[in-house]
Amino acid sequence: MEIKVLKDILSANEQLAERNRQLLDSKGVFAVNLMSSPGAGKTSLILETIRRLKGKTRIGVIEGDVSSSLDAETVGKESVPVIQINTGGECHLDANMIENALNNLPLQDIELLFIENVGNLICPAEFALGEHKKVLVSSIPEGDDKPFKYPLMFHEADVVLINKIDLLPYLKFDTQAFSRAIKGINERVEILPISCTTGQGIQEWVSWLLNQMSRR
Amino acid sequence: MEIKVLKDILSANEQLAERNRQLLDSKGVFAVNLMSSPGAGKTSLILETIRRLKGKTRIGVIEGDVSSSLDAETVGKESVPVIQINTGGECHLDANMIENALNNLPLQDIELLFIENVGNLICPAEFALGEHKKVLVSSIPEGDDKPFKYPLMFHEADVVLINKIDLLPYLKFDTQAFSRAIKGINERVEILPISCTTGQGIQEWVSWLLNQMSRR
Repeated sequence: MEIKVLKDILSANEQLAERNRQLLDSKGVFAVNLMSSPGAGKTSLILETIRRLKGKTRIGVIEGDVSSSLDAETVGKESVPVIQINTGGECHLDANMIENALNNLPLQDIELLFIENVGNLICPAEFALGEHKKVLVSSIPEGDDKPFKYPLMFHEADVVLINKIDLLPYLKFDTQAFSRAIKGINERVEILPISCTTGQGIQEWVSWLLNQMSRR
Repeated sequence: MEIKVLKDILSANEQLAERNRQLLDSKGVFAVNLMSSPGAGKTSLILETIRRLKGKTRIGVIEGDVSSSLDAETVGKESVPVIQINTGGECHLDANMIENALNNLPLQDIELLFIENVGNLICPAEFALGEHKKVLVSSIPEGDDKPFKYPLMFHEADVVLINKIDLLPYLKFDTQAFSRAIKGINERVEILPISCTTGQGIQEWVSWLLNQMSRR
């Protein structure tokens, strides 16, 4: 019963996601679904990216959280259009929530849309939103065993950003073993080490992003 | 429809959890449900606790993960009974999974049972397992805003362990603001700063645990 309902929900979600993608395409908006564990650095990454692309690319943001509007308030200070979704108890965003948000964003003024998903390494990987690319932010303090424990998320990602590499000296984390484990699950994925604190790797990330946008 | 099904599932889960608790009580087993984000340090905490209580308290462990048996292999090296649950895609343990695991553990040889939940700050808070206490491990690198974003988890916890405090010098984290936010959600909760790397606070945690066991 539970499984049947879940299948129905996922199938309905796919259809809505496809409709979202068509809307985004018709408006020329490139959408990125940002996923990670709680506190891996999604919001910091969005802030860094907005600052690097200021005056060059028009950015909009959808913030997803179970509760609170902290992230939308933080991002809103950068003078970009932002909408906060509160899921209540739901542990992921879905295409229906995104449709509502898209209807309330000035899409004609947006070239690049960040959708910050709920902090969770499991269910967000199952729900398409209509995004063009899926970005997984995985941070050093979480440990290098995460691909084995959360394989679907690593399988679905188009790029994995290894965040907080400035903490490498203080933690046991084998970057090579981590990258090997990811490639074992997802051969085509790009892996970029970054630090939103020191700025290391952010330029490579922004280049990757602009390259994806130009290829569309 | 989705909500109705969820209510039915949660209600059935409560009944199973109550049965698990009765079984645990009849065998004199004190069970702890350990919850956290991915990589916050649940397994390290279990290992540290086993080492501190060696020869004093007989411990058993249930390891919950979406995939892999890495944690059960690690814990098994400490020569305690351990069972790995793989949830497949499910983002939390439930009482039914625990019932199966209990039937395969030597409960007569266990006084303290750790149930390591799936790394996730959302859904595990909704599913009772039959545990006597809920422990939330929240680590410094996740940031001090987590209580606002994941209020149910902080509301349900009997104790919050602030883990990885050895990383405090390298991160922006306001321990007082964090504690205040937690107390705003959950007045009765205990808050203990710890580090599984340096051992700081582990004695206080073990004392809390033994105190809870003795009070039963």
